[in-house]
Amino acid sequence: MNRYWSGRIRDIVPYTPGEQPRERTFIKLNTNECPYPPSPQVAEAVQAAAGESLRLYPDPECLELRTAIARREGLEVDQVFCGNGSDEILAFAFQAFFDPERTVVFPKITYSFYPVYTDFFGLTRREVPMNPDFSNPIDLLCGHNGGVVLANPNAPTGIAVGLDTVEKLLGANPDVVVIVDEAYIDFGGESAVGLIGRHSNLLVVQTASKSRALAGLRVGWAMGDPGLIDGLRCVRDSINSYTVDRLAQAGAAAAIRDEDYFQSVRRRVMDTRERTKKTLKEKGFTVLPSQANFLFVSHPDHSGKKLLDGLRARGVLVRWWDKPEIKDWLRISIGTDEDMEALVQALCELI
Amino acid sequence: MNRYWSGRIRDIVPYTPGEQPRERTFIKLNTNECPYPPSPQVAEAVQAAAGESLRLYPDPECLELRTAIARREGLEVDQVFCGNGSDEILAFAFQAFFDPERTVVFPKITYSFYPVYTDFFGLTRREVPMNPDFSNPIDLLCGHNGGVVLANPNAPTGIAVGLDTVEKLLGANPDVVVIVDEAYIDFGGESAVGLIGRHSNLLVVQTASKSRALAGLRVGWAMGDPGLIDGLRCVRDSINSYTVDRLAQAGAAAAIRDEDYFQSVRRRVMDTRERTKKTLKEKGFTVLPSQANFLFVSHPDHSGKKLLDGLRARGVLVRWWDKPEIKDWLRISIGTDEDMEALVQALCELI
Repeated sequence: MNRYWSGRIRDIVPYTPGEQPRERTFIKLNTNECPYPPSPQVAEAVQAAAGESLRLYPDPECLELRTAIARREGLEVDQVFCGNGSDEILAFAFQAFFDPERTVVFPKITYSFYPVYTDFFGLTRREVPMNPDFSNPIDLLCGHNGGVVLANPNAPTGIAVGLDTVEKLLGANPDVVVIVDEAYIDFGGESAVGLIGRHSNLLVVQTASKSRALAGLRVGWAMGDPGLIDGLRCVRDSINSYTVDRLAQAGAAAAIRDEDYFQSVRRRVMDTRERTKKTLKEKGFTVLPSQANFLFVSHPDHSGKKLLDGLRARGVLVRWWDKPEIKDWLRISIGTDEDMEALVQALCELI
Repeated sequence: MNRYWSGRIRDIVPYTPGEQPRERTFIKLNTNECPYPPSPQVAEAVQAAAGESLRLYPDPECLELRTAIARREGLEVDQVFCGNGSDEILAFAFQAFFDPERTVVFPKITYSFYPVYTDFFGLTRREVPMNPDFSNPIDLLCGHNGGVVLANPNAPTGIAVGLDTVEKLLGANPDVVVIVDEAYIDFGGESAVGLIGRHSNLLVVQTASKSRALAGLRVGWAMGDPGLIDGLRCVRDSINSYTVDRLAQAGAAAAIRDEDYFQSVRRRVMDTRERTKKTLKEKGFTVLPSQANFLFVSHPDHSGKKLLDGLRARGVLVRWWDKPEIKDWLRISIGTDEDMEALVQALCELI
């Protein structure tokens, strides 16, 4: 705190991102990054864009990148918005579509940035308790809300819902925007993009950080009715007209266009996930069914904090939250097969 | 407008950035970009950063880049904050340091994003009329304010104030933050960075977009007391923890370290500015004294809109605002000597 701080930030508890270690080399399974490099075409596109033209502002409308996304998803360009990672887009969407006097709802165990957004933007929220198996409490998210946010697959559980469930949610909340945060959709879930034409209240948010292996480039996108896209543009142009730089636009577009590489990366991650899950279950761990690039894991005889600290001492970083409902669980990102063997070995030493 | 828009954006008039033409080649003197390419070391640094590590999130604290800035400016690293262009940093600062119930003041003719910020963040503002010669109304910015914003040099006038004036403003507003927006400081103004140690209410904001020729990379920074830097961090971590990507961090740090290149670029721009100013005055134009990389120009016999349209028809883009006080003025960015010869010729055809 500082005497010059505004009331807005005096009591805020900001989001805490996963640790980005600088000094020591860890096996880094704590921030759901992709264990494989991005498409080789990204470096080529970046290099081509890194010349004299850097002196000029980027295209504020990200037309090349939006065209690549629209083509892949079978959408029109005016149904796509690009931003500085899906976090920025979520922050824009909370401001564009939610009002203080109407309660925004989302599951209690989900991406921990959502409650930060409602606090920071002065919104009210209702966090709906999970079903006992950690699946999403869909019925409790239906009707009379000021907005709905659903991560699908959910984080940190990894559990996905089907399109019938998403459509039920859209139909039950016709007067407010339903944000479906699909950061992890490419690892086995069903994207709601195909529902956009039928539901003008649907905003689907995706990112290049996970399945495109571009967390370092900061690119995300939203897809929805052009009226919603215009709302996001209105927020952006009230804050910072150019949030995606030239290199990020060029690199992300190249990654989107390299469909073969994308398919091979996501397949490898899913294969490793299923193998790791099987092994951990054999060793006595409880592992939730994940459609994401991470596993949510606990052990009946060992606390989450103990496992977290023990893994760190053995050079493996994973993610843990100090929240009563999930304090005995770890979120473990899927690394390479070697990373996961090292993880399993370290866990076995701990139990 | 769309039925799903929040009250926050329903009545907002967003900022309009200068046109970024896609189809036709113009002599582009409308967005104060640098006419020269960035330091060759930028491309090298970007290339080195564009490999496998793009799969990992960037350093959220931008340590390498902040260290480069701190070293150059004689500051500690904890006195520096980096963001996605100075626009993002200004937006963060308005949220971090200004409160709705206390009026923020700035000159009436200044960077047109400031009133957008006060509207969008629900703040109140007082826009202080300029002195008759378009210089800053410093006395009217002193005392009993909820915050002060001063662009130095000012935009679009180009007029700078000296450090004694900045210090007067700081002393007269000791209980609130004074933002000094130094986007154009490297073209002849005196930076207030040296005052930071003495004034804990001073926030100096700079950018890589102009004098470092990196508008396409989206990097800006704020410098001030560590308590103010923490406030900016608090806002950032409530919105989007990583707004400066790996390539932007690496490229901007390389540009900051290449002091010789920086000095030669700013010198060339200033030389061209002075030559252009002299020529335009000889042709009968009124030209304000500029310490920036642009000139603010009018002609006694021709409207600003007529000159704007005539220049566009001749392939030259400049900036014009439909505001009563300045509707007969054009803001003309400094291009290469050839660009400015073409501009002068086009203007001479028009008068």
